[in-house]
Amino acid sequence: MTFPDFAAGLDRERANEELFELLRIPSVSADPTRKQDLVRAAEWLQLKLQSLGFTARVDATPGHPIVYAERLQAPGKPTVLIYGHYDVQPEAPLEEWITPPFEPTVRDGRIYARGSTDDKGQAFAHIKGAELLLAQGELPVNVKFLLEGEEEVGSPSIGDYLRAHQDELKADVIVVSDGSRFAPDVPTITYGVRGLSYVEIHVQGANRDLHSGAYGGAAPNPINALCEIIARLKDEHGRVTIPGFYDGVEPLTGEERQMWAELPHSDEEFAASIGVSALPGEEGYTTLERLWGRPTLDVNGIWGGYQGEGSKTVIAAKAGAKVSMRLVPGQDPERITRLIGEYVPQIAPPGVKAEVRPHHGGQPVRFDLGSVWVKAADRALQRVYGRPAAFARTGGSIPIVADFAQILKTPVLFVDLGLNEDAPHSPNESFAVQDYHNGILTSAYLLRELGEEQDPQGPQAAPSAGA
Amino acid sequence: MTFPDFAAGLDRERANEELFELLRIPSVSADPTRKQDLVRAAEWLQLKLQSLGFTARVDATPGHPIVYAERLQAPGKPTVLIYGHYDVQPEAPLEEWITPPFEPTVRDGRIYARGSTDDKGQAFAHIKGAELLLAQGELPVNVKFLLEGEEEVGSPSIGDYLRAHQDELKADVIVVSDGSRFAPDVPTITYGVRGLSYVEIHVQGANRDLHSGAYGGAAPNPINALCEIIARLKDEHGRVTIPGFYDGVEPLTGEERQMWAELPHSDEEFAASIGVSALPGEEGYTTLERLWGRPTLDVNGIWGGYQGEGSKTVIAAKAGAKVSMRLVPGQDPERITRLIGEYVPQIAPPGVKAEVRPHHGGQPVRFDLGSVWVKAADRALQRVYGRPAAFARTGGSIPIVADFAQILKTPVLFVDLGLNEDAPHSPNESFAVQDYHNGILTSAYLLRELGEEQDPQGPQAAPSAGA
Repeated sequence: MTFPDFAAGLDRERANEELFELLRIPSVSADPTRKQDLVRAAEWLQLKLQSLGFTARVDATPGHPIVYAERLQAPGKPTVLIYGHYDVQPEAPLEEWITPPFEPTVRDGRIYARGSTDDKGQAFAHIKGAELLLAQGELPVNVKFLLEGEEEVGSPSIGDYLRAHQDELKADVIVVSDGSRFAPDVPTITYGVRGLSYVEIHVQGANRDLHSGAYGGAAPNPINALCEIIARLKDEHGRVTIPGFYDGVEPLTGEERQMWAELPHSDEEFAASIGVSALPGEEGYTTLERLWGRPTLDVNGIWGGYQGEGSKTVIAAKAGAKVSMRLVPGQDPERITRLIGEYVPQIAPPGVKAEVRPHHGGQPVRFDLGSVWVKAADRALQRVYGRPAAFARTGGSIPIVADFAQILKTPVLFVDLGLNEDAPHSPNESFAVQDYHNGILTSAYLLRELGEEQDPQGPQAAPSAGA
Repeated sequence: MTFPDFAAGLDRERANEELFELLRIPSVSADPTRKQDLVRAAEWLQLKLQSLGFTARVDATPGHPIVYAERLQAPGKPTVLIYGHYDVQPEAPLEEWITPPFEPTVRDGRIYARGSTDDKGQAFAHIKGAELLLAQGELPVNVKFLLEGEEEVGSPSIGDYLRAHQDELKADVIVVSDGSRFAPDVPTITYGVRGLSYVEIHVQGANRDLHSGAYGGAAPNPINALCEIIARLKDEHGRVTIPGFYDGVEPLTGEERQMWAELPHSDEEFAASIGVSALPGEEGYTTLERLWGRPTLDVNGIWGGYQGEGSKTVIAAKAGAKVSMRLVPGQDPERITRLIGEYVPQIAPPGVKAEVRPHHGGQPVRFDLGSVWVKAADRALQRVYGRPAAFARTGGSIPIVADFAQILKTPVLFVDLGLNEDAPHSPNESFAVQDYHNGILTSAYLLRELGEEQDPQGPQAAPSAGA
């Protein structure tokens, strides 16, 4: 069977301009002052999808709205649900951006803007992919879009939304592009994501800030105490010390470790790419194993006392930190959150009160590599990149993937279009223009390849969600 | 000999209004944007002293200006140099102030304002004390005022100033009121101050912020690393672990420990006064010994990563902390700063770069209790408070006291007018109206009592400066 040359049909200039419009909307879901910007982004996507002949609407949630769209004109063909998110990470620290985070700028073949790769660029590539197909006629499969605005804050509303719209969201496979390919020349199908437990630790000392001269030596110091607590959360082997933290963790299979060992990876290059001299972590595991198959604990932010210019001789009344733990199959976020909540007060030094406030979590998930969907995706990627896909897991967490598995009972296909060097979540986040355009082509070929499959009896394999 | 009743001569209303004018000037020496406010405060003091018949001038320095004034109309009588500072601590965190820091407000008999007790209130009490005496005739001693604007940032300019003006600043005794009485009903003469070494620790990880999902488990985390470093700076006995830190520390004498043990102090009340359940510190020493006679290490501020609302799954590129160490006789600030600068990089975990940037320091000092000046101060305090003074040391640091000892070779008399509960350096700093007025009376009686002494051959005892 011959495929049309989608590349010839792609108006690259226009594709860029449209994405830039979306990137200019500062839809930072963590920032309450940006609520209206999220509504604007959702309505922009609704209009775009309507212009392509999709039935599209913006559904309110307790948080930020969800965009739902569908075009079901392929009877007897599979139904594909494409998930993405239009919210973005906070832009802080703003001063480190070379060009403004919400004014997309192309430099050295890269689109620099917050959300360019995570996930506006990757999600919009699928809308443009559908547009490419429609320019040639009808879509080869039934297509549904689900675009949320709370992914960067843990998708608090999507679970209830999926439950409330189970029938409407019914699909044979869910396609998600919200991650990074293994390497620039390596198309990647990702079959697992880590879970997440995100908490804040708050430490209270005296009932007011104290003069460090008048009180130093007798008054408890909540900053020193917080540092002690955080230092005690890991041992000298890089293992988390929270009792029960590793209970039930699924060990990596020999097959998996073998497959990953064969991927083109160099610790030296990896360390050089982020400008560090060593890659510290849990002993006994390779870097890829630590990134994809082992849990972690990282402090994402810390504060306390005087941070201004000059010096202030003060013992602060309180200090705090944001701490996230990446989880793997076998670990349950709620249980881990409970465990750290019990442990931190136990290891708090005398004189201070320490408490853990849960933020959000996400289930770790791993999917089956044998499904027809994976094979179809592999074929599509070969057409665009000219080589077979690598099968990887990702260290990141996409909380709603667990909801897809548990609520919609639908397998997920991760077709990552970005790269780690896009620096998602960092200042100067970017998306290579070439990767964006390849993403559009990948989406078009993927829908065509999926159209070659028959409407199956249902999911090929039940996903194995964590715990 | 009969003394006039200074209390009757004091116009309390006017004394308050004048202090309020001074307190309204936001002379924060650590804030470069407030440079002009420091000049305003200096000129305000110059005018006030000129109005009392003092020769007064404002001398420029590389930093903030110094106010010098003198009235030398008591031939054959001792010369008294009164030192104070008109600069104040930063007001942050502003949101914790019940009333604005630079709009003095009286509540429950207390004057609430930044600088009310530290040190505008205490320094101005001496100016009003001289005014009281002048209302009765000539001053009983020769009086010099030295009022600086850089005490809260470590007095970087005063050393050179003292060297340049040694003859002009010649005096028999230096009076300093910049601290806290031991207790509300206990007039206090302080004979020792701790020294200080204030540094910043900076930790660098990757060359950019990283996604904690994509990199967590392999990338070094500078916040975790900073916490480990800080935790390692003290052992489980509350002792600082920096090699050589305790070398040469003068042990407390049995006499001192005895004298302090007899002071009215309750650990329970002390802990309750700051709202904590325990008073952690170096093992083997009482609370007063730890506060006055032993060195400390306290983190005064810490920062890194995302501190905003919500959650951000980021591994920061860098983190930092402000760390101060209080020193005691036998320790040299420059040596201690060098030692921590050498030690921190040694204990930094793999993958990060850690460095120490010195801020400022101050020498620890202790003075002789047997001098005629101490006896005169004791008599003056008895006249105001009706009971003999307690002899204490303070945990605070007044860097320039070491300069007085080393450059001017002049003994210092600490006559503290404030209280710890004034909360200097904290939000809602205050000064009891009663203490302010007693301070004015104390100053008047002190100058009278000092006038009873003959102009001596010089300092009674050489001060023992640290190291």
